[in-house]
Amino acid sequence: MDLKAKINDYIQKNKNKAIELLQNLVREKSVSGNEAAAQKIVSNYLQNLGLVIDRFEPTIEELTKSSYFISERTSFEDSPNIVAILKGTGNGRSIILNGHIDVVPEGEISGWERHPYSGAIVGNRLFGRGSTDMKGGNVAALFAIEAIKKCNIPLKGDIYFESVIEEESGGAGTLATILRGYVADAVLIPEPTKMKIFPKQQGSVWFRIKVKGKVAHGGTRYEGVSAIEKSIMVINHINQLEKVRNTRLLDDPLYKNVPIPIPINIGKINGGTWPSSVSDLVTLEGRLGVSPNETIEEAKLEITRWLKTLSLIDDWFIENPVEIEFFGARWLPGSIDLEHPFMESLKKSYRYVYKNEPIIEASPWGTDGGLFTQIKQIPTIVFGPGETKVAHYPNEYIDLDELFRCAEVIAYTLLDWCGVDE
Amino acid sequence: MDLKAKINDYIQKNKNKAIELLQNLVREKSVSGNEAAAQKIVSNYLQNLGLVIDRFEPTIEELTKSSYFISERTSFEDSPNIVAILKGTGNGRSIILNGHIDVVPEGEISGWERHPYSGAIVGNRLFGRGSTDMKGGNVAALFAIEAIKKCNIPLKGDIYFESVIEEESGGAGTLATILRGYVADAVLIPEPTKMKIFPKQQGSVWFRIKVKGKVAHGGTRYEGVSAIEKSIMVINHINQLEKVRNTRLLDDPLYKNVPIPIPINIGKINGGTWPSSVSDLVTLEGRLGVSPNETIEEAKLEITRWLKTLSLIDDWFIENPVEIEFFGARWLPGSIDLEHPFMESLKKSYRYVYKNEPIIEASPWGTDGGLFTQIKQIPTIVFGPGETKVAHYPNEYIDLDELFRCAEVIAYTLLDWCGVDE
Repeated sequence: MDLKAKINDYIQKNKNKAIELLQNLVREKSVSGNEAAAQKIVSNYLQNLGLVIDRFEPTIEELTKSSYFISERTSFEDSPNIVAILKGTGNGRSIILNGHIDVVPEGEISGWERHPYSGAIVGNRLFGRGSTDMKGGNVAALFAIEAIKKCNIPLKGDIYFESVIEEESGGAGTLATILRGYVADAVLIPEPTKMKIFPKQQGSVWFRIKVKGKVAHGGTRYEGVSAIEKSIMVINHINQLEKVRNTRLLDDPLYKNVPIPIPINIGKINGGTWPSSVSDLVTLEGRLGVSPNETIEEAKLEITRWLKTLSLIDDWFIENPVEIEFFGARWLPGSIDLEHPFMESLKKSYRYVYKNEPIIEASPWGTDGGLFTQIKQIPTIVFGPGETKVAHYPNEYIDLDELFRCAEVIAYTLLDWCGVDE
Repeated sequence: MDLKAKINDYIQKNKNKAIELLQNLVREKSVSGNEAAAQKIVSNYLQNLGLVIDRFEPTIEELTKSSYFISERTSFEDSPNIVAILKGTGNGRSIILNGHIDVVPEGEISGWERHPYSGAIVGNRLFGRGSTDMKGGNVAALFAIEAIKKCNIPLKGDIYFESVIEEESGGAGTLATILRGYVADAVLIPEPTKMKIFPKQQGSVWFRIKVKGKVAHGGTRYEGVSAIEKSIMVINHINQLEKVRNTRLLDDPLYKNVPIPIPINIGKINGGTWPSSVSDLVTLEGRLGVSPNETIEEAKLEITRWLKTLSLIDDWFIENPVEIEFFGARWLPGSIDLEHPFMESLKKSYRYVYKNEPIIEASPWGTDGGLFTQIKQIPTIVFGPGETKVAHYPNEYIDLDELFRCAEVIAYTLLDWCGVDE
């Protein structure tokens, strides 16, 4: 029996173990600040497999040494990172399998058909916040490691499994692993790509724009200046910038099936205090997609300058320029050379499992991958089960068949990339 | 010395009494539910002048008998109306002088240069919430009565001075006076018209519109439908309705200097929950101006139908129609025949004081006047000191010279309208 067949056999016969692990993880509400219980499940699991565990709580002191640090938290006490190490026999290429344990809050409970942390299984789907983003992907990677260990296949290269905090809030967890010295020859992040291979990752940064008006009574609204009307101009102006920015990516084959490669999303609007008053302030909040071909700073500068040109469209903005600030989380763009051997290794494994060509695209969102490529120039690929459209929304679920096929692909990639010590 | 000269003389010599009264009233924060202390000042003042006082707390039981009742309050305990009666000697025309004692909250304190309830005097201005809207107007009317009483001028017709609650929340106070039986041959409401005569009053009603979208991650915003983008269409569509409605008033001479006679003001916008998500709901709140030539119900029906035609502009609205509801306060439109003798009486008095022609316009906002004209067909004019643009905003003030001139105009109008018993 060849190694791949052994692994496949193990995966097919032990699916219930992986499902139980995923259910246990989903049932822990590991929102930011509440990750310890879920991390305990991960570290116990990996310890039982015989891996060496490094459990550590990032410190603000250490993190602030890096210009890439961003967080609204003042402490990471009781919010540990877990790094598990499976040492190879030597002379192999090393790999980091990185996944975040934090989940976004469940939001309005009324939108959920089941309890948000149920882990309930219906047909082939396992439901719950974090099932797709990204505990499902984490379990795929963990189960790949388990299969290799249980099949007693010795690999030459080292494997690091990183279960990190704070991905949803800007990457402090992964940054802490890098600052602690964890590097490798490649990184795989099993975020939900619907099994597409993402060699490029879009970055993003949040912005807040304040649009001014002038108050007046609604009955004499012509005596005021409506910040709501002015904000419509601002939104239209931003839509123009989105067009300008996206034309630069028209010829990039990785974006050929993406209607808007790097969107600018206005996600929130709030303005006015009284139905009968002309509003004098509207606040817009949104997400600026950052191309893999630019830095976050370049993107921030472009939108800041673009907003200054509002004064060419409407005189109001000459005396009342809009204000923009950048806040909250941000994700760095990242990429890997399309011809890199790690790409080849993953594509080969994918073909073996799926019997067809993988779809290769650029990610429509940021991950912690940008930190690896920008800080340590480590080639990073994002590839995992689940799809974006259920992440962050009610009734999130993961397709279990897809999860197990992903576990196979990852396991075969580990064999190929790290090398088997015959 | 003729009667007008006597009155003028009294007013000129006793301004300090009126200023002190206004300061005392402004210093009472008579927001809805907290009117009792200010009403006590009014009733004491009128009692000292020898008027008969009817102090009564409206009851929900009584008010709900009227289809015009609107309020979010469940009780008016400790929120009395004051009606003071100065009986005439007989055979004269009666009049109601109606002013509200309630003020809107001061809002964000940081916008105020002085304490919002200071009553501070700087130059010719008295500052504080309610100074213009409308304790200044009330004091003008009260001081007119005082002058007539102190000058011992016997009038033929009855004078009712009404200090009412709840004008800012839909008129429950004035409605209660009507239900209690108080009627007269004319009504004067000294709301801040900047001494223009308003024989027509705009009505208004608040609406709330919900615009739906479809959530998606901002990085793949093309998979969603932005409720913010759709709400821009809705706002533009409402702007078109405003044009349609206002063309109907193009030939009305009372609106010839008003850029938008009956505005539709979108005062509030709120939508989205996360910068990185496509918003699936935007709520717009606004004020629909109601023409003196239509009923509130007609205006509501027109905007409701207009919004249904959004589906002709964008297919999204076929399956996802916007929802509109009407809420909160509403003011009935009102009017008086331009040739009515009460108009003549007021215009004559104005000319006597100002030595020029009064400006006659339609009000850009509603008052309790609509209740008098719609329920009891009592001819009603709105005319008073102060101007709209400082009402409801920080640093509200009243021009004291204007207040005293208004007291003069009102006093002369009372002489002329009610008739003097020689």
